[in-house]
Amino acid sequence: MASIKPSVPKGTRDFSPAEMAKRNFIFDTIKSVFRKYGYQQIETPSMENLSTLTGKYGDEGDKLMFKILESGEYLNKVDIRKTVSTLIQDVYNNSLDLKETQSLLFLERLEALQNTTILSEQDQDTIRSFRNIVAHNLSWGDLNLNSNKLTPQISEKALRYDLTVPFARYVVQHQNEITFPFKRFQVQPVWRADRPQKGRYREFFQCDADVVGSDSLLNEAEFILIYDEALSALGLKDFTIKINNRKILSGIAELIDKADNIIDLTVAIDKLDKIGFDGVVKELLERGFTEADIDKIKPVILLRGTNDEKLASLRKALSTSVIGLKGCEEIETVFNYLQSCKLQTATCELDITLARGLNYYTGAIFEVKTNEVAMGSIGGGGRYDDLTGMFGLKDLTGAGISFGADRIYDVMEELSLFPAATNQSTKVLICCFDKDGEQYALPLLQQLRAENINSELYPAGVKIKKQMDYANNKQIPYVILIGSDEMQSGLLSFKNMASGEQEKLTAAQIISKLL
Amino acid sequence: MASIKPSVPKGTRDFSPAEMAKRNFIFDTIKSVFRKYGYQQIETPSMENLSTLTGKYGDEGDKLMFKILESGEYLNKVDIRKTVSTLIQDVYNNSLDLKETQSLLFLERLEALQNTTILSEQDQDTIRSFRNIVAHNLSWGDLNLNSNKLTPQISEKALRYDLTVPFARYVVQHQNEITFPFKRFQVQPVWRADRPQKGRYREFFQCDADVVGSDSLLNEAEFILIYDEALSALGLKDFTIKINNRKILSGIAELIDKADNIIDLTVAIDKLDKIGFDGVVKELLERGFTEADIDKIKPVILLRGTNDEKLASLRKALSTSVIGLKGCEEIETVFNYLQSCKLQTATCELDITLARGLNYYTGAIFEVKTNEVAMGSIGGGGRYDDLTGMFGLKDLTGAGISFGADRIYDVMEELSLFPAATNQSTKVLICCFDKDGEQYALPLLQQLRAENINSELYPAGVKIKKQMDYANNKQIPYVILIGSDEMQSGLLSFKNMASGEQEKLTAAQIISKLL
Repeated sequence: MASIKPSVPKGTRDFSPAEMAKRNFIFDTIKSVFRKYGYQQIETPSMENLSTLTGKYGDEGDKLMFKILESGEYLNKVDIRKTVSTLIQDVYNNSLDLKETQSLLFLERLEALQNTTILSEQDQDTIRSFRNIVAHNLSWGDLNLNSNKLTPQISEKALRYDLTVPFARYVVQHQNEITFPFKRFQVQPVWRADRPQKGRYREFFQCDADVVGSDSLLNEAEFILIYDEALSALGLKDFTIKINNRKILSGIAELIDKADNIIDLTVAIDKLDKIGFDGVVKELLERGFTEADIDKIKPVILLRGTNDEKLASLRKALSTSVIGLKGCEEIETVFNYLQSCKLQTATCELDITLARGLNYYTGAIFEVKTNEVAMGSIGGGGRYDDLTGMFGLKDLTGAGISFGADRIYDVMEELSLFPAATNQSTKVLICCFDKDGEQYALPLLQQLRAENINSELYPAGVKIKKQMDYANNKQIPYVILIGSDEMQSGLLSFKNMASGEQEKLTAAQIISKLL
Repeated sequence: MASIKPSVPKGTRDFSPAEMAKRNFIFDTIKSVFRKYGYQQIETPSMENLSTLTGKYGDEGDKLMFKILESGEYLNKVDIRKTVSTLIQDVYNNSLDLKETQSLLFLERLEALQNTTILSEQDQDTIRSFRNIVAHNLSWGDLNLNSNKLTPQISEKALRYDLTVPFARYVVQHQNEITFPFKRFQVQPVWRADRPQKGRYREFFQCDADVVGSDSLLNEAEFILIYDEALSALGLKDFTIKINNRKILSGIAELIDKADNIIDLTVAIDKLDKIGFDGVVKELLERGFTEADIDKIKPVILLRGTNDEKLASLRKALSTSVIGLKGCEEIETVFNYLQSCKLQTATCELDITLARGLNYYTGAIFEVKTNEVAMGSIGGGGRYDDLTGMFGLKDLTGAGISFGADRIYDVMEELSLFPAATNQSTKVLICCFDKDGEQYALPLLQQLRAENINSELYPAGVKIKKQMDYANNKQIPYVILIGSDEMQSGLLSFKNMASGEQEKLTAAQIISKLL
């Protein structure tokens, strides 16, 4: 039977053993750092009720959610409001576009009737309309039904779109069991019906840590430490954790009364290095800022120097903005915490052009970038003051960060940062020439495993060459060969697959070599 | 704003930190045993193409699959074949059941027309039919559309229903990259739209290990060792691994030429202990077996004793059946392997009433039961000779087992087998009386974490009582208290939360206690 080669849905991936080993290395490293900082793991269901998800990610999000079709005779619940009678009324009102007539016996009778001169003109019109209806091919539009209207009637659930909304739902639902501050981490897949492209998948893992119920800026400082520790442990050698504060951006907007244009402003300022001050001014004027605006925010545009110097300049520039100064104070507090805690690798940089998540972040904003390869951000987060408000639990502040696992994977691959042993699952393979060898090998196999040495016995009946290929392909570093000589002497051939070196050793010697 | 308390979809669950810790304990234990035996992890996408899944689980499975609604204007792809003209034709043929007429202006005109005596009776009929149409409320049935017909037009993907079919798809798709025998394990959720009930969920994890491309019975023996080692490591103290062989069942059926009644037979034989030989005979007669049948299989019904004794009796009973003897030989080979490998805890039992998966298993059949609590099987598996045939790759033999993680969880909970430390995520909490203490604590916190001790600093500004409650609720075993005395002397209060014992120690002393 010829059959089509099976495949996975667009935008999804299989992970082979080699890829899994690398992914596990990333996830295990990040998880162990989360745990070290007191974050506890939770998991939420892959599906959430549409009522939980809808409206939380904007129209685009609602569209890109993967909805689950109800099971059973779901059409029974769907109402097709538009009846044929209304359709006919529409035809009568000439509001429908009619297709070619069809030749039915029935139509001929109508035709005849229509031409009956004994009918009044009005009656003939009525008949004519009917004739059109008969000829009409029904469409979904005629039934007043489109996919947007149908979906909520045939779907009640969707796949998780991110980990944040399910976490908010979790906190509200379990608020009486939770001890606050609640520090949780979550590593689970999310699904988005985005157009797949390089590095963007329809199923991908998010890797989040959030704390809710604590407004202490110690949490922000610890997030920076977590980034530093986890990414250092993964082997990254040069990366920057950018920090900004929403309140500083609000302060700047307050100065010039342009809260809606804050993104335009930061995008222009971000180009200072490339296009110089005059270039930035030109761009700001083009984007609708006035000369007077630019005058007021000139110190912000020219912000330079160390974090401390930047903070000092900002304090001066924002001296008239209560909220702006509050932002400066928050950032300073975070930096003060960090002074007592040496960062291993990261550079921490105040960057007022960082303007992500302005719809929900209310305090700190984070973004992490590697300086070793060209790549978008590999992490981000911030503080939000109303995570759970959408589910009716007000005034619960929180902050969180996320690791971009797929991008971190690509960075590590490009820099060859995965330890060579990552993909070594089996440490030693026992190869036998025949059934006797297999029987002889079993107690040794048991001994190896009792010592927690991952080991395999290749089933007898296959040429040694093929067994060695198996070891090579599976990157098994050691092989034990058992032939008749070995069984007689008790000295087994022990081969290092990398060096090709081979020696005769007792079982006990082999085990102590492998431990 | 009053809002409805959010919830998760029917049959799905949130896992709290305490539950996650226990689930991770189970999964990590099983995974590490899989790895020890040379099995490598893969993951496949949560969604598969409907073409991959449909027809693989019977009608029931097709119905219980969670289908994903296509995104965008999916109705555009749906054809509503039945046009109004055909509907009218149906009415004309009196084949449709019509609802109450509606009072439209339009209807009145029709009425008048219908009663016009100048029309022939035939013309009046025509008009009458139209009038019915006008009054007719369109339904899905009229459009010749039901959910079964619609689904394939608006859905192309479904959520994974098990791990076996995606694995088969994986093997066929990646056959050129795979080194056979391919030993893979997979621990991922699956989804079924089953009616939720105690212990049965719509989203649950499966935990499978399979080997394909090796017909050696060493694999079967190793599966028994894997069950033994993993369940022993989880703390189970009394469990039975039942083994049977499909070929033995085929042999028995061959004896009496009743292949279709093999389940009836095994169900009846299974009752021997309860209802005695006469009872079993009575039941077999009721189930359509003849006296002659029963005579032939009497030795099978009365199968008793050790595994060796049972095998000897079976060989005698099945002496005329080639396939039956082959089954006995296979089981014996597995037992021979096991003689060289001591089982830690499990009892291994030949049980010819074990008749699961008869549609796909072709050799060994496994089932695992705990003898400590009443519970269905906590594991099962077997050998199948044509896993990948459904995707066009023939003659690839395989065997696999599965652990029932949710049931194992319940067993362990009932027997209190989870180690007390499972839920200890943070080892020590630093509590401070004020901001000065917090600042003082930071370097210590860093030191603790540098030693890989999971530790937290409670943000300052909260009463010590509340901080201690936090430690208690989170089951943190140790607390370090930092007040002004402690900062002056450098001797910190170190409290054992379980015993209540408290002592004054230097930071270095505390760290060495915690290591």
